[in-house]
Amino acid sequence: MEPDEKPETIILGATVLTHTEAAAPGYPALPADDTAARGTVHLLADHAIGIAGGVILWVRPTAEVSAAERDGAELIDGAGHVAIPGLMNSHTHSAMTMFRNSAEDVVTSTWFNDHIWPMEVNMTPRDVRLGAELAVGEMLLAGVTSFADHYFSMEEIAGVVERSGARALLAETYFSSQGDEGIERSAAFAEKWNGAAGGRITTAMGPHATYTVNDGDLERTAAHARRLGIRTHIHAAESPGQTTSSLAARGITPMEVLHRTGILETGAIIAHGAGIVEDDLRWLTPWADRVAVACCDKVYLKHAQSGITPVRLLHDAGITVGVGTDGPGSHNTLDVLESMRFLSLSEKDRHSDATWLTSAHALDLATRQSAALFGQGDRLGRLLPGYRADIVLIDTRGPHMQPMHDLAAALVLSVKSSDVSTVLVDGAVVVRDHRLTTLDLEPAIAELNERIPQLRDTSHGRRIQDYAP
Amino acid sequence: MEPDEKPETIILGATVLTHTEAAAPGYPALPADDTAARGTVHLLADHAIGIAGGVILWVRPTAEVSAAERDGAELIDGAGHVAIPGLMNSHTHSAMTMFRNSAEDVVTSTWFNDHIWPMEVNMTPRDVRLGAELAVGEMLLAGVTSFADHYFSMEEIAGVVERSGARALLAETYFSSQGDEGIERSAAFAEKWNGAAGGRITTAMGPHATYTVNDGDLERTAAHARRLGIRTHIHAAESPGQTTSSLAARGITPMEVLHRTGILETGAIIAHGAGIVEDDLRWLTPWADRVAVACCDKVYLKHAQSGITPVRLLHDAGITVGVGTDGPGSHNTLDVLESMRFLSLSEKDRHSDATWLTSAHALDLATRQSAALFGQGDRLGRLLPGYRADIVLIDTRGPHMQPMHDLAAALVLSVKSSDVSTVLVDGAVVVRDHRLTTLDLEPAIAELNERIPQLRDTSHGRRIQDYAP
Repeated sequence: MEPDEKPETIILGATVLTHTEAAAPGYPALPADDTAARGTVHLLADHAIGIAGGVILWVRPTAEVSAAERDGAELIDGAGHVAIPGLMNSHTHSAMTMFRNSAEDVVTSTWFNDHIWPMEVNMTPRDVRLGAELAVGEMLLAGVTSFADHYFSMEEIAGVVERSGARALLAETYFSSQGDEGIERSAAFAEKWNGAAGGRITTAMGPHATYTVNDGDLERTAAHARRLGIRTHIHAAESPGQTTSSLAARGITPMEVLHRTGILETGAIIAHGAGIVEDDLRWLTPWADRVAVACCDKVYLKHAQSGITPVRLLHDAGITVGVGTDGPGSHNTLDVLESMRFLSLSEKDRHSDATWLTSAHALDLATRQSAALFGQGDRLGRLLPGYRADIVLIDTRGPHMQPMHDLAAALVLSVKSSDVSTVLVDGAVVVRDHRLTTLDLEPAIAELNERIPQLRDTSHGRRIQDYAP
Repeated sequence: MEPDEKPETIILGATVLTHTEAAAPGYPALPADDTAARGTVHLLADHAIGIAGGVILWVRPTAEVSAAERDGAELIDGAGHVAIPGLMNSHTHSAMTMFRNSAEDVVTSTWFNDHIWPMEVNMTPRDVRLGAELAVGEMLLAGVTSFADHYFSMEEIAGVVERSGARALLAETYFSSQGDEGIERSAAFAEKWNGAAGGRITTAMGPHATYTVNDGDLERTAAHARRLGIRTHIHAAESPGQTTSSLAARGITPMEVLHRTGILETGAIIAHGAGIVEDDLRWLTPWADRVAVACCDKVYLKHAQSGITPVRLLHDAGITVGVGTDGPGSHNTLDVLESMRFLSLSEKDRHSDATWLTSAHALDLATRQSAALFGQGDRLGRLLPGYRADIVLIDTRGPHMQPMHDLAAALVLSVKSSDVSTVLVDGAVVVRDHRLTTLDLEPAIAELNERIPQLRDTSHGRRIQDYAP
């Protein structure tokens, strides 16, 4: 990329969400009082973004875009819109759209043992493909350009990512109950697909959890991750109860399990971590450059698990926190704007502090910090020259956003994901005027609805795993 | 209304949300296991609703609607939609759209004393009208057909309700600091407007709160309410802290204040009630037929007030609970679907009970029970013959709702208010294909944005009231 390269695409006249970083070439200088404090964003009115080769060339006032630059470029009108970095879903199980709203108003053990895990016995690779298509379409329409996925039949999901134009960090799930087959399949998937789809697909190892994968398998997981130069995405300390159980059964917390087995050292994406305790920081902080926790507060409220990710503790210790939805079987949507809202309000409530977890901070978590969780903080999550052009235009003119006193607050507390109008990934338009350009979801929706009776038939009495953390 | 009256409008082929009530003439029989338990709804697939004279004539399977009935009627295609009773916003300050997102990430006392109350010094009756137009438009688009409003310059808001085709229960706010003028204006407004707009407007007395209106004025309020046969809408025990303050200052809780001053006896709409304690039930239960509490959980989380409306306590005591948004200055939207979601999830979390406050229960709270809060449980909040035809069609085909395992859960946990496509009030279409038929919001939005600098100018150093509950 050269600063004077000709843009192929230009977004004009948008308000651009930026981060407090040192000015880069082609990037407007930020006010003198800006600091690199964690959790701050800035909004630049009437700016333009030049894009070529899938990369952001520059961000500058619209008035400074020359006629020569405009000539021949695809022009996207950003008037009335805010341009934000593509939202990143830091933890999900995309294909579980097939189980959306299928197991409601039940406790976690019932959710797993009597509903989800017996139903997962029934699903086929085709179901996973259909579920992932629906998920990716739903996410792109809601401005979610990247997702960290953890599920079965991951080859099917990778195919959907490839075709859809989305970006994903994919991990094939396994349990120790599967023997060697699970872990080896996860490693083979990770090796084959890392860097695929022009770099839009990256991979991680996918051990299910510290309570379903034993220490030996976690050590083998870490060895694979080291060999492949990838991270490990794992459920750990999902609730306070799991930490209590681990201490009772083994005398150590789930975080110490991750430490002892070498998972933290490889770089860990810790799903939930609501059971992380202050003493766990001694395991986490040495690896603050590569360990991150994905927070999905809506699910913690719904499952009534009496604990949420300790975002403030992690924040103060310099540990990265990403925003996630968890699977749509528990979160009911794949809407990261909704997750941001729950995160901001749950944090204020839990700390009895209305001044904590501001809207600007929530936006930073769902963009810059989530990109760091993906291990791609140097190329995603910010609208800066040299970063990949994953950009979302949100229409701010809806009555529920107006009048406009504070755009950051509006984006966290007033917005609806239906306000997303245009979405680019790697500079390619994947949503235009609220419509997907790469996917037709209707066949997948129709076929999944036909599959519901078979998916829900649990008369076989089996489940893919037992929940007894 | 006669059962064989000719319908003017027919909604065809929708799934219809019903309540567990004894079958009425023209209403389909419900399954034998139905009970009149609080908090249950039922969904009838492929049904039709016949409407004439602003009233629901019948609800029956679409196949049973005759060609003669269809002939000459306006037909509304409900395919792919669920028909629900118009959502009811049990507590708001509609015109505060003008202050949406203007006072964020601050504690409650700062919110009042340094932001909202100094800004309210600046507003004019015209601002109130513009703010109310924006609010009513936003609500109708989100399927909110009725709202219980509490604000200043209420004549302006009544005019907007009249023109927009919405329904509202209006109360003019007053403080004792205004002397006699405030209470008398509130009473005169209530007397003049009760039953206006063809019955779409009803009224209540509007004392601000137990901490800003003294006991003498509350007694006079009760006398006005008795004389006019109306209810009293008042903020009371908004947070646990207010109950503690009241006990410290006076030795009695805010509920006992409402009891002693006769407010409960007149029928009270208690805004928030998050500070209601178990002992307060002795004041509330004798008036369970006319007392109700409006719950706005999103606001309690945001203001970090360490307490939410004790819905379970009230439920078990037979006290009606309605769903509200509070003003958009604190809730950031006027979206009752969003309020339902926060209510359901906050309740599960607070009681550490994932089986409590089911989606069906949340739907009942936002419809049937909110109608009871309005004092209109015999004509609103249910899709039953003889009830007013306030009906909302929600498109259930969006990818975020699919596949469809459980429609009640989808309506509480997956829906976006942008899924609302058609809205009727008193049988008249006020939203068609996602567009308002009665209001053009653009001029109001433009003018309010121009007003922001003047609205935010607090250099005068005054405020309309002090917050020191």
